[in-house]
Amino acid sequence: MRISTLSVGDELICGQSTDTNAGSIAAMLLAEGLRIQRHVTVGDNESDIIGALNDLGRVSDAIVVTGGLGPTADDLTSRAAARATGRRLVIHEEARAHVRLMSSKLEALMVCPLSDKQAMIPTKSALIPNPNGTACGFHLMHSGCFMFFMPGVPSEMIVMLRETVIPFILERVPHKRFIRTVTLNLFGPCEAEVDEMLLGIARPAQGLTLGICVTFPWMKVTLRAETDNEHAAEELLLPAVCTVRDRLNEYCFSCGDISMDDAVAELFKDRCLTISLAESCTGGLLAKRITDIPGSSGYFCEGVVTYSNDAKMRLLGVPAELLNSSGAVSPECASAMAKGVRVVSGSDLGLAVTGIAGPEGGSDDKPVGTVFISLAAPDGCWTKRFQFNGNRDEIRTLTAWTGLDWLRRYLLKKE
Amino acid sequence: MRISTLSVGDELICGQSTDTNAGSIAAMLLAEGLRIQRHVTVGDNESDIIGALNDLGRVSDAIVVTGGLGPTADDLTSRAAARATGRRLVIHEEARAHVRLMSSKLEALMVCPLSDKQAMIPTKSALIPNPNGTACGFHLMHSGCFMFFMPGVPSEMIVMLRETVIPFILERVPHKRFIRTVTLNLFGPCEAEVDEMLLGIARPAQGLTLGICVTFPWMKVTLRAETDNEHAAEELLLPAVCTVRDRLNEYCFSCGDISMDDAVAELFKDRCLTISLAESCTGGLLAKRITDIPGSSGYFCEGVVTYSNDAKMRLLGVPAELLNSSGAVSPECASAMAKGVRVVSGSDLGLAVTGIAGPEGGSDDKPVGTVFISLAAPDGCWTKRFQFNGNRDEIRTLTAWTGLDWLRRYLLKKE
Repeated sequence: MRISTLSVGDELICGQSTDTNAGSIAAMLLAEGLRIQRHVTVGDNESDIIGALNDLGRVSDAIVVTGGLGPTADDLTSRAAARATGRRLVIHEEARAHVRLMSSKLEALMVCPLSDKQAMIPTKSALIPNPNGTACGFHLMHSGCFMFFMPGVPSEMIVMLRETVIPFILERVPHKRFIRTVTLNLFGPCEAEVDEMLLGIARPAQGLTLGICVTFPWMKVTLRAETDNEHAAEELLLPAVCTVRDRLNEYCFSCGDISMDDAVAELFKDRCLTISLAESCTGGLLAKRITDIPGSSGYFCEGVVTYSNDAKMRLLGVPAELLNSSGAVSPECASAMAKGVRVVSGSDLGLAVTGIAGPEGGSDDKPVGTVFISLAAPDGCWTKRFQFNGNRDEIRTLTAWTGLDWLRRYLLKKE
Repeated sequence: MRISTLSVGDELICGQSTDTNAGSIAAMLLAEGLRIQRHVTVGDNESDIIGALNDLGRVSDAIVVTGGLGPTADDLTSRAAARATGRRLVIHEEARAHVRLMSSKLEALMVCPLSDKQAMIPTKSALIPNPNGTACGFHLMHSGCFMFFMPGVPSEMIVMLRETVIPFILERVPHKRFIRTVTLNLFGPCEAEVDEMLLGIARPAQGLTLGICVTFPWMKVTLRAETDNEHAAEELLLPAVCTVRDRLNEYCFSCGDISMDDAVAELFKDRCLTISLAESCTGGLLAKRITDIPGSSGYFCEGVVTYSNDAKMRLLGVPAELLNSSGAVSPECASAMAKGVRVVSGSDLGLAVTGIAGPEGGSDDKPVGTVFISLAAPDGCWTKRFQFNGNRDEIRTLTAWTGLDWLRRYLLKKE
């Protein structure tokens, strides 16, 4: 089945907002074995919407349209749908009742005349219920093409897609395809190194694809199997995943949607160890990422952001002589910070970072991007110098990722 | 001039990556008075690319294509361009020299046979130089439509667009339009309140539009003037901006691309005051956002993330009795934290937040989303209770935004 998507909105076609609907629709359909063939975006302009529906209608068996169903004058999708398919626009009583019910729920005190506009849909259409908003969607069939119209608000659209549109399409797919995707997330090596690690792996069999996607600062290796029965898709995919995972080994921190932060959090919960942080150049980013995770209060004790030498001495007990002789950006200072925060907080682990995030503050022997990371633990203290490239934001991001990866690798060894 | 964009890539049409090129091209063209009429995305499939070029060619005077010019087998845009326009694909000597030069710069040790693929472009095309990558772009004219082909890497594409494509188009636009846009950013009121604040403003004159765009957790009010001479656009826009800005008053924290963090940073630099932070539920997010800004070490002294009562007592001097009697999530604790961090750090201002970000930890009188913010300053200490709605991430985000907005409002009064 050839499926297309159409997003309607001036804010999208002007580049003021990023279209996230197109991607979420594509991903949700793909999980059901359905591929998008073409995506189109147009502004809030009736003839542009009609033109896009006509062009897509010629090359598609189904079109999923989002946006332009709101109550204001620049919401034109219903009218364009009626014109493009030679229908009249009429008040749909069920849609009107829904608009009024939802408006009262949303505490709008009056149903203004405008809101009836959201109940106007083309004749010979069926409603797509919207449990989360005022605008119903609708779908119709025109010249052999199913057209689905939904509001652009992602939280409303996704429910309507899942509960009505996808089941409707799946019932009409003659030969269901099964697409299974596994994504391995890795941190550390560059793209060329990943290529080399995967070298010599037998060429993907028919129906199996392997892709590398660089998403700063980590990478995704995606394996996808497409077959016409579910069992065959799993059979094709799983051995390939094992082989690739073996090769990527310690660089692979998770599968699928599990972030580095999630992976580290799981290990902390599992190992029953606690952590405190002493941050200089990351300025709280590491603490923020660790405490992003619900339940982090179970293993995160405290964090200090010590920009000044005074704070390093007062809060972490870094000796003044050390700061004078080695400087604040030095392996000595990093390890004194890590040991210091571990002792004062009484936590099992202390992680410290100190460095130069820029754009100012670099020197010949410590250029911008010089970072020292130190981990103090019951069984030792490790400190390492890194040289990161990029702007301030990228250097801070790489530092936080590397710090979290150190924790992950340490915790992995403590079974 | 009718302009369309076309993005090519399996990762885009599968929903694995979000297409940011379409938006940046639209925004860059809009600043030059050029509007995109239709945007299309297709996967790495030759017939889909050809179909999209044909359909767009019928409704456009120019098409800006990105993606699919890489060295690997799934990069098919050049071949599709040749087929769609009835041209042959030939090695372009200048493009080949460029590929080899850039490959050697990028320290690729050998020019592998694959890389000649990037020098194959359709006959009767002109090169679009790419100073930042191996793949040259090219452009050609087919059936009255200019087609521009560029690689999908944003950092390469944007330079090529700015230096070659936009000047080329502008030379050929018969009647140049001038589009001027001003965006006002505001934090605090909800959409209905903004509507009310803007009520009664004279209906936008011909050529002037006003739009409200909700971008959690802040809002953008965009005013746009479109005329056929530069002076008229400014004349139309500026009085409208002044009127709207007056109405939005203290809620408007900046214009254009200036973030809340930037606005607060500017005020700190200007007022010569210093700040320290004591965070509980935001877990370092406030410190991270303040130190995101280059030069923040000039006014940011230190931050502490005190999850535990022990840390609140030890690092901030919060009395044990206070924690016992009022609890850690209380106005008393918030103000003790703010005063405490101000005193121990010796900074001018101390900002503290304590609350329940969830999903666990709520109670009947202090449900999830209860947050106390306190600001301690030389001229007083203010503490307020907030009740935020949302998930953990949204509550933390709203808390940090509100804390920054407090700082902004306080600093604004200290001229």
